[in-house]
Amino acid sequence: MKKFKGACVIGQSGGPTSVINASAQGCIEAALKSDAVTKVYGAAYGITGVLDDRLYDMTMEDPLQISRMKHTPSAIFGSCRYKLADPLTNAIDYQRILDVFKKYDVRYFFYNGGNDSMDTCSKISAFLAQNSYDCRVIGIPKTIDNDLACTDHCPGYGSAAKYVAFTCMEVGLDAKVYGNGSVTVLEIMGRNAGWLTAASALAKSMGSGPDLIYLPEVPFDLADFISDVSRIHDKQRDVMVAVSEGIKDKNGTYISSYFSDTSKDRDAFGHARMGGLAGSLANFANAKIKAKVRGIELSLLQRCAAHIASKTDIDEAYLAGKTAFETAESGISDKMVAFKREEGAEYKCVPVLVDLVDVANQEKKVPREWINVSGNGLLEPFLDYVRPLIQGESELEIVNGVPQFAQLKKIMTREI
Amino acid sequence: MKKFKGACVIGQSGGPTSVINASAQGCIEAALKSDAVTKVYGAAYGITGVLDDRLYDMTMEDPLQISRMKHTPSAIFGSCRYKLADPLTNAIDYQRILDVFKKYDVRYFFYNGGNDSMDTCSKISAFLAQNSYDCRVIGIPKTIDNDLACTDHCPGYGSAAKYVAFTCMEVGLDAKVYGNGSVTVLEIMGRNAGWLTAASALAKSMGSGPDLIYLPEVPFDLADFISDVSRIHDKQRDVMVAVSEGIKDKNGTYISSYFSDTSKDRDAFGHARMGGLAGSLANFANAKIKAKVRGIELSLLQRCAAHIASKTDIDEAYLAGKTAFETAESGISDKMVAFKREEGAEYKCVPVLVDLVDVANQEKKVPREWINVSGNGLLEPFLDYVRPLIQGESELEIVNGVPQFAQLKKIMTREI
Repeated sequence: MKKFKGACVIGQSGGPTSVINASAQGCIEAALKSDAVTKVYGAAYGITGVLDDRLYDMTMEDPLQISRMKHTPSAIFGSCRYKLADPLTNAIDYQRILDVFKKYDVRYFFYNGGNDSMDTCSKISAFLAQNSYDCRVIGIPKTIDNDLACTDHCPGYGSAAKYVAFTCMEVGLDAKVYGNGSVTVLEIMGRNAGWLTAASALAKSMGSGPDLIYLPEVPFDLADFISDVSRIHDKQRDVMVAVSEGIKDKNGTYISSYFSDTSKDRDAFGHARMGGLAGSLANFANAKIKAKVRGIELSLLQRCAAHIASKTDIDEAYLAGKTAFETAESGISDKMVAFKREEGAEYKCVPVLVDLVDVANQEKKVPREWINVSGNGLLEPFLDYVRPLIQGESELEIVNGVPQFAQLKKIMTREI
Repeated sequence: MKKFKGACVIGQSGGPTSVINASAQGCIEAALKSDAVTKVYGAAYGITGVLDDRLYDMTMEDPLQISRMKHTPSAIFGSCRYKLADPLTNAIDYQRILDVFKKYDVRYFFYNGGNDSMDTCSKISAFLAQNSYDCRVIGIPKTIDNDLACTDHCPGYGSAAKYVAFTCMEVGLDAKVYGNGSVTVLEIMGRNAGWLTAASALAKSMGSGPDLIYLPEVPFDLADFISDVSRIHDKQRDVMVAVSEGIKDKNGTYISSYFSDTSKDRDAFGHARMGGLAGSLANFANAKIKAKVRGIELSLLQRCAAHIASKTDIDEAYLAGKTAFETAESGISDKMVAFKREEGAEYKCVPVLVDLVDVANQEKKVPREWINVSGNGLLEPFLDYVRPLIQGESELEIVNGVPQFAQLKKIMTREI
């Protein structure tokens, strides 16, 4: 098949992960080698960088710095949470994208993000086609939430899961050090899908971790929670609990909203309080159970801890980016690179292509049958699923105590 | 000098660190090799294990598991915050310790902890001497707070400092990913001394970290804070701040107490709220500065993150324990093992002995001249001091994704 000749743009979207830059690197390195590509650009702050005509010229970067992207956390070009309008009602953004693509002769567009980003990709591609502008559009999956449909798992999840597992194991050992009774509640990211919180079960299977795990997939009940915590407390004094930030009751109301009545919930200066589900639940338990309580929010740490990234995840993230470019170069468009796990005892995942429209705006949840009947723990099939994803240590180079994260020059090409 | 023949007890006290078990290992391995020692015991939950006659027999443990203590976080024998009474007014505990020591013929006692623990050591030693009971008592320093007097630094600090530096660097990259303005406040441990919070300055020196750092050593003023944050926000949109949990105003009042009026500060269930200085300060800034704000508490994570411990710290912690035993074996008592930094461009610290009474109940603060004039940042001499302490990577063994932490049998000898 005849190769399109033209420029290539890659954008990063949504919440960053430890390995989103590995995907960018995989795509960029493949593009830089291709004779089909005239220029390689990174879009500043995702699609808004295209809209604002802010593109970084990757041919101006030192290849050593590009090679360090693999181990550099956060989205190196910047990210956005910008949602494009429906092109049928408002095509301004799409027209602007088309104009910028024409200006730079962009014939390859890669967008690295979650389900919203796949929707964005799909709409852009359709608009370009309607306007007879030839451009290959490929999505690259990314999310610590692991909630994308049509793929075994998402790059970004394995590293975040490893961070959660190690942290839960270490905190599990620490929290019981006085042996005189404690309730420690850890809050882990995940509004609607509990994949990342579920990874805390790895810690327990390794020797020290949460005794109770609550996911958004199972309705949460405060009375059951207290009864669960009391039972463990009576048995072993120290109790560790992991909760998804998005746990909901049987009516679908977020439990966090129970504790944040913003009309009353103000500090001494009259400012509305921010969340803190872990602290609130620990506090709530304390009213019923006499023990030292503590709430710990893993916050941003769980998605940017590149120092403890999973090598499997880094390699797959890189492969996803590389495959995305090779797919586009071969003439295919409107696909997302997904992963398919092969049968057999040995873990092996291979990249496959799925339709963008099949991924867009869908959410994959933890199967109910992987959660125990009581809804407060994970079962072996989940552990079998997640264990391979955290394997292997990051090869982040550390020189004189300093992690060698990539430093790009980010030279803008607006002047061209 | 004639060696005392008898049993040896080691206890762990106060908040654990990533490397407190390395010190225990250094002491235990040296003791197990010594022909002066008849038995080696670990006291369950610090000095309370002696009072309760709960001693674990180390000769029953697998040497492989003992060798893994070096990389195992939390205090493996358990810890306590028990403060012995003044022996002049209440000698019950001391008499009990003497009785238990007699029962097991304990002639070597090692206590691994902070300044309170050195006070404990000192008082026990004096009581034993008054009762003509021959026993060598040696203190082993440990604290992430780094606030012990008479020593260049404390084992435990380097690893916690490294965790803080890496985390601040990673969060620093993540927090500015959207580029549309943010204030991120990190809360780091340290009630009265700001050593650990100061270590966040390493991140900034590495490329991404806090723009403002506030320590308990300098009076904190809310108006100055807002003015500092506004200035940085105007200049670069994204602002990162590190604060010690123990920052105080010019009257010595904890800033955290400003935000926690426990009479009013209750959640929807009427329970008193727990702290959260970072969230409160971020919230406070948000009322004055229009930006996305976020408070992050490093909580227990900063003291138990063995996976990112400093090799220098691990090695020194081990050496402190080993030196403690060798010191006692040589007939010396009533000392703490300290570290003295040698002159020269190359970092070298050697163990030295200091009197327990000189360390007991003192607190070493960050020198004012290492903090900038405005009191919101650290200067080069501090960075020169701390940089060597975070060097070298932990050799924690990870097999199939599982960190190989020590698992002791903890066989009690009460029956003897």
